[in-house]
Amino acid sequence: MKMSGGVEWAVHCCVVLSQADRPVPTARLAEFHGVSRTYLAKNLQQLSRAGLVRATEGRVGGYELTRGSGEITVLQIVMAIEGEDPAFQCTEVRQRGPLAVPEEACLRPCGIARVMAAAEDAWRDSLASVTIADLAKRLDVETAGSALESMRGWLGGR
Amino acid sequence: MKMSGGVEWAVHCCVVLSQADRPVPTARLAEFHGVSRTYLAKNLQQLSRAGLVRATEGRVGGYELTRGSGEITVLQIVMAIEGEDPAFQCTEVRQRGPLAVPEEACLRPCGIARVMAAAEDAWRDSLASVTIADLAKRLDVETAGSALESMRGWLGGR
Repeated sequence: MKMSGGVEWAVHCCVVLSQADRPVPTARLAEFHGVSRTYLAKNLQQLSRAGLVRATEGRVGGYELTRGSGEITVLQIVMAIEGEDPAFQCTEVRQRGPLAVPEEACLRPCGIARVMAAAEDAWRDSLASVTIADLAKRLDVETAGSALESMRGWLGGR
Repeated sequence: MKMSGGVEWAVHCCVVLSQADRPVPTARLAEFHGVSRTYLAKNLQQLSRAGLVRATEGRVGGYELTRGSGEITVLQIVMAIEGEDPAFQCTEVRQRGPLAVPEEACLRPCGIARVMAAAEDAWRDSLASVTIADLAKRLDVETAGSALESMRGWLGGR
């Protein structure tokens, strides 16, 4: 079970966008992260489709967050890239074989599916408890202010 | 991010094995679940490699749990099928680009990797809190004893 590498890029991009005071072109985000523009473009489009960023056109065209960074959670970004489906898909094994439970008797999800769903909920709750603003703030504290300052300086210098 | 379908079969097989008083042949487990023997054989081999079940040979050859069902957790089964690697793999994006953090300054994992690891821990803790014995007991309670009794009857009738 592997998370797409795009999630990592997407979260990093959102942290950078949270420090920008104007839209940041894809090429500039790609340059900042030392990665190909094509690769990043796909992830940014997925973030855009999920309504987390929006593309602006014109001379200062680029991407910007659609709302405050305190209102964008890591879970939202993961879902934007990975999709909303839970990792475990119950195929109703209990309804098979010689002791099959009739479908009409399956009023609740299978006990195994419930255990998997509870674990998925715990994972989602954990990711939903952290916003982009939290990530930026932690980075700020851990680098005594230097990381975000450098980031804003670099973003401003174009 | 999808969990392999093998996990579902493997957990169901372990619940069945927890009700058997002697080794259960693969063919019999396959018959019980209405699934192909070849498909199940692969999952059982993975469980065996992880030390959760063992194959016995001879006239009553088949699979049995290696320990009490209260000592086998859903997490152990998921890891046996999916492997031990966490879903998120940090590729050190922070060490790239014009503001790259030097490797020697990366004393702690990246903040984004830490958020992902905390969520993975929450997921694993949740799955580790449920044993095969718990699943069997819940099934027993929800079917007023009939499901496990039928299972044991079917397993004994060979």
